[in-house]
Amino acid sequence: MPLILDNVAQHVALSPAEQDHLLSLMEPRTLKAKTLLLQAGEVCRETYFVTSGILRSYTLDDHAVEHVLNFAAPGWWMADLYSLISGHPGNLYIYVVADAEVLVLPKHRQEEMYQAIPKMERFFRILVENALVAHQQRLMDNRSLTTEQRFEKFCKRFPDLQGVVPQKHIASYIGVTPEFFSKMKAGLLRKGIS
Amino acid sequence: MPLILDNVAQHVALSPAEQDHLLSLMEPRTLKAKTLLLQAGEVCRETYFVTSGILRSYTLDDHAVEHVLNFAAPGWWMADLYSLISGHPGNLYIYVVADAEVLVLPKHRQEEMYQAIPKMERFFRILVENALVAHQQRLMDNRSLTTEQRFEKFCKRFPDLQGVVPQKHIASYIGVTPEFFSKMKAGLLRKGIS
Repeated sequence: MPLILDNVAQHVALSPAEQDHLLSLMEPRTLKAKTLLLQAGEVCRETYFVTSGILRSYTLDDHAVEHVLNFAAPGWWMADLYSLISGHPGNLYIYVVADAEVLVLPKHRQEEMYQAIPKMERFFRILVENALVAHQQRLMDNRSLTTEQRFEKFCKRFPDLQGVVPQKHIASYIGVTPEFFSKMKAGLLRKGIS
Repeated sequence: MPLILDNVAQHVALSPAEQDHLLSLMEPRTLKAKTLLLQAGEVCRETYFVTSGILRSYTLDDHAVEHVLNFAAPGWWMADLYSLISGHPGNLYIYVVADAEVLVLPKHRQEEMYQAIPKMERFFRILVENALVAHQQRLMDNRSLTTEQRFEKFCKRFPDLQGVVPQKHIASYIGVTPEFFSKMKAGLLRKGIS
């Protein structure tokens, strides 16, 4: 079964006809590593479902420092949700970390999808609820957990990204400097944990 | 029109019968100031819609330091979403800052609501999408904006909370110590901004 159908089946049961309809609304696209899928200042008009490869979303602050918002490995969805919803230019960059295959859901087809397959309204409600919970938790973790504890959570959330994405981007996701992150990892190595 | 119907009408159009049905699923409750509506370790089984007063959600870290996750003024929804969804004990406290009137949506009625009024699935999808966007933005703001800029955003988001909730809780929401927050505000006063 295609990964996307497995993913949707986690929350709603589609009939074979609905499955076909969903697949017909999404367009497969091959992405080359080290390219930008979306840039700050652009309007995001698509949602991506990753079937292989890795995406990373980030912002740039006034000092051109990158802040990693998220990663998307196979089975994850990604978009600049603010820009997608509002229709305004966003401030997110979406970068292709490793050669990727994605299924693209264009915005105008998303509404068509909700009309044709009302269960998808439920699916995206649950998907977004889970994402909100994860973000609230991360916001609180940044304040109350140590760097080690946050790194541990990162490894659980993205078991396949360690060693694949640059350390500095994991550091940024966790909210520490690359230098501090290196020291923390060296400490873990000494303790024989990592 | 009751505030709750106004709130729902922002995203979906309910028929008069659906409006009545929604109201029948929610139970009005009066809350006394300075009481806890939910404590860490409890399972959250209700969602609250504030019609008057103010709620605050927060976590306590290992050093018993409070970290403010959110405020809910009239027209806002609040729950420990993680606990509500998972059915596991949560780590959120919900505190009644000022005498409040809320409408309570019990979890078992939420599913009943989605079955009876499928449009509410859409409403909560959009509500949660907007909350997710706000949280992602806040996570990024904590890293890339100054305290002044974050305070400005807080004032825009909660125009009626300044002077009503303790400064230390606004400081915590913004992610700085009360001492740093006081210094920042004194600086703004000198500049004639606040």
